[in-house]
Amino acid sequence: MIDIAIGIDIGGTNTVFSGITSDGECLVSGVIPTQTKDRFEDFIDDLILNIKQIVDSSNDELNIIGVGIGAPNGNYRTGTIDKAANLRWKGKLELVRLVEERLKVPVKLTNDANAAALGERMFGGAKDMSDFMVITLGTGLGSGIVVNGDLLYGHDGFAGEVGHIIMRPGGRECGCGRRGCLETYVSATGVKRSAYKMLAKHMGESSLRNIPYHGLTAKMVADAANEGDLLAMEIFAYTGKMLGEALANVAAVTSPKAIFFFGGLAKAGDLLFEPIREALEKNILFLYKDKISLLPSELGDDAAVLGASALIWNDKLN
Amino acid sequence: MIDIAIGIDIGGTNTVFSGITSDGECLVSGVIPTQTKDRFEDFIDDLILNIKQIVDSSNDELNIIGVGIGAPNGNYRTGTIDKAANLRWKGKLELVRLVEERLKVPVKLTNDANAAALGERMFGGAKDMSDFMVITLGTGLGSGIVVNGDLLYGHDGFAGEVGHIIMRPGGRECGCGRRGCLETYVSATGVKRSAYKMLAKHMGESSLRNIPYHGLTAKMVADAANEGDLLAMEIFAYTGKMLGEALANVAAVTSPKAIFFFGGLAKAGDLLFEPIREALEKNILFLYKDKISLLPSELGDDAAVLGASALIWNDKLN
Repeated sequence: MIDIAIGIDIGGTNTVFSGITSDGECLVSGVIPTQTKDRFEDFIDDLILNIKQIVDSSNDELNIIGVGIGAPNGNYRTGTIDKAANLRWKGKLELVRLVEERLKVPVKLTNDANAAALGERMFGGAKDMSDFMVITLGTGLGSGIVVNGDLLYGHDGFAGEVGHIIMRPGGRECGCGRRGCLETYVSATGVKRSAYKMLAKHMGESSLRNIPYHGLTAKMVADAANEGDLLAMEIFAYTGKMLGEALANVAAVTSPKAIFFFGGLAKAGDLLFEPIREALEKNILFLYKDKISLLPSELGDDAAVLGASALIWNDKLN
Repeated sequence: MIDIAIGIDIGGTNTVFSGITSDGECLVSGVIPTQTKDRFEDFIDDLILNIKQIVDSSNDELNIIGVGIGAPNGNYRTGTIDKAANLRWKGKLELVRLVEERLKVPVKLTNDANAAALGERMFGGAKDMSDFMVITLGTGLGSGIVVNGDLLYGHDGFAGEVGHIIMRPGGRECGCGRRGCLETYVSATGVKRSAYKMLAKHMGESSLRNIPYHGLTAKMVADAANEGDLLAMEIFAYTGKMLGEALANVAAVTSPKAIFFFGGLAKAGDLLFEPIREALEKNILFLYKDKISLLPSELGDDAAVLGASALIWNDKLN
């Protein structure tokens, strides 16, 4: 009998799940589409059915000790998903209750960036750290913050929205309804917007001038920069500078030992890390100077489910 | 026999100490000048002697269970004062070790804002709160942040420097060597600087035009504002707006249930609170809207020593 925690990552398109050991080994995995059911309860039934099937199909005898779930806007304190812009079901979704009723094991929920932080601590590069931060760089910018060895949830479970720090009052429109939020500059979408800003500002030739806005991706900008496209390089310099400035301010609140970067945009590597580091050290209070490590996440492609399962393993092992 | 914790507040001018019960009652108190001795060790000897005298002089039989110390730049993790700009002794001051050697009881040190936060939790308005923040508004702006029921120290003991969040890149010179830090705008000194900015910007008459910079105090500006001086009112509106904007960003990191205000400038009351509240709600992410209480500290004049003693009582009672 092998104990496993089920890690579930609910995304806008697919929901991925794995049975994960206390060492972070994925023994079984599966995936279902997230949004084909009209009723949220039907989605949950479909998910549970699929989880039971993969667990039963294993050659090992597996014992589910709990279920950890990472989902956008997932609230640890209430066990619900509140106002998730990228899901078809509206209102408060009683995710934890519904899964607990069906599987009769402890179920925990948090947002995807918090799950990534917990995963980094249990299975990645933050194993010995009690104060660090994970920045997820995808369509938006998420953050999971660990302090005193625990995730920082805040009084309502919604702490750690670093992507919504206002960096430029009156600046770019944000999906949250305000302007100038960090993620409007630093995210895959932010890079696209900065690309168009730079194309407007400068006269120089660039391969990006041939791509329409809706055809452009952050990866194209990274590729162009790596090929020496000066405009593309400036876009990353601008993006990294903005993030470094923001992190210098966040450091004055939480003083982390390290900041891990995760997600598609983080794959740009030094193109992004160099200007982040430069702006961070330039803008940071002397107390924190040269103390904060900027590191890529050590979790691989299974990061999301690993992090979700860590919600269970972290409680079990501590 | 009554158990007491000694609370010590080391200020630039005076060092105040009290023997405090677990209920927050100050049974004995004393004060000595901070900076009359050439050697730091001699100051400590003087302090210990005075503490022993007031404890012995009490009609009750008092038992010292520990010593809590609040001091600018006091580091909880190392037990030292590092680079305190307002003290005559340079380098790392081994405060905790020196006091422990002499009194043979547990000694804990933190900075004054952290002590204030702990005091608010044990003896003030934050008794039932596990996630809140205290902003101290004096010569500078300090912050003590409690999350998950514990002080947020960060990996190096230096977390919670909200006063050094950069609000205006390239803005006002700060004592930390950078520019545009929050405390250059929001503090007693910041109010003075804003007074001169407004006097330069506007043409209107104001009683403040008769006071030289070095003669001006934040209290004079508050008094003028309360008497209807339009320029003075605008100074407070500007100060509160800047703080509200900053707190909206900090909320995106820590999501506090309440923010307490403490210190001389906080006595300006609604003159300051109203614009803070307005700017906070205007700039905050929808997730946190109308959730954060802005409150005056419930600790009175003994706040600093109460907070320092809470370093001991908090450990003892939890």
